[in-house]
Amino acid sequence: MVNQQFATAVHILTALAFNKKKLLNSEYLAASVSTNPVVIRRLLSSLTKANLVTTLRGKSGGVHLAKEPNQITLKDVYLAINLSDSICANNKSPTKDCPVSCSMQAILGTVAEGTQKAILKYLESQKLSDLIKKVPKPKN
Amino acid sequence: MVNQQFATAVHILTALAFNKKKLLNSEYLAASVSTNPVVIRRLLSSLTKANLVTTLRGKSGGVHLAKEPNQITLKDVYLAINLSDSICANNKSPTKDCPVSCSMQAILGTVAEGTQKAILKYLESQKLSDLIKKVPKPKN
Repeated sequence: MVNQQFATAVHILTALAFNKKKLLNSEYLAASVSTNPVVIRRLLSSLTKANLVTTLRGKSGGVHLAKEPNQITLKDVYLAINLSDSICANNKSPTKDCPVSCSMQAILGTVAEGTQKAILKYLESQKLSDLIKKVPKPKN
Repeated sequence: MVNQQFATAVHILTALAFNKKKLLNSEYLAASVSTNPVVIRRLLSSLTKANLVTTLRGKSGGVHLAKEPNQITLKDVYLAINLSDSICANNKSPTKDCPVSCSMQAILGTVAEGTQKAILKYLESQKLSDLIKKVPKPKN
């Protein structure tokens, strides 16, 4: 799951949780992440489909969380942005007369599945409500 | 840990374990993996440094496992090839006046660490001796 997409999606959701029910737009979120609003909008589309955020259209529109922060886990985020498996099996055709080569896809498939399960189990234990506790509250 | 390096390293070690104490060279291994011998040699160098394989130089030289297959786990392989963290935090500078932005590196650091631990715990349970059980033995 190496990529910025997951990190950015977590950032977006943390910002929305921190700002409670306040509507935030993609320009605001892009400034917080230091990225382009297009990147944010693409991710918001995936997060909306997964029912994690709700978008209100229009000039004063924006995005807010679709659920309470304690109802969103990092597993939801991982599944929402549909990351590819963390281990890819060799994508070349096996060497036909080599029994090891012919078995590698099955072997690595099992390892990839086990790794994925371990990752998801950990991410499921991480709630958005826990993450925002690490953000210092404004003094005023 | 998305990449072919891990898959190829597992393939190399499975081939060595399957062929027991027989010396295999990088050309043989490259044919089994369907890759270039240079790729194999680079990985063998990392696996040698991690004390997982032993190289015998010379014309009739080659590589064999440095340990019994039940003493090698996939955690050893993962650590040997020194893969980068599975989640990268946002590598851009935080937006200074945004408390969420300033906290993201710490938040994602904790998540990356937890994910890494979960992956390593699973990989540690996977021994090379279990993997080779999935390779059919030659009939003769």
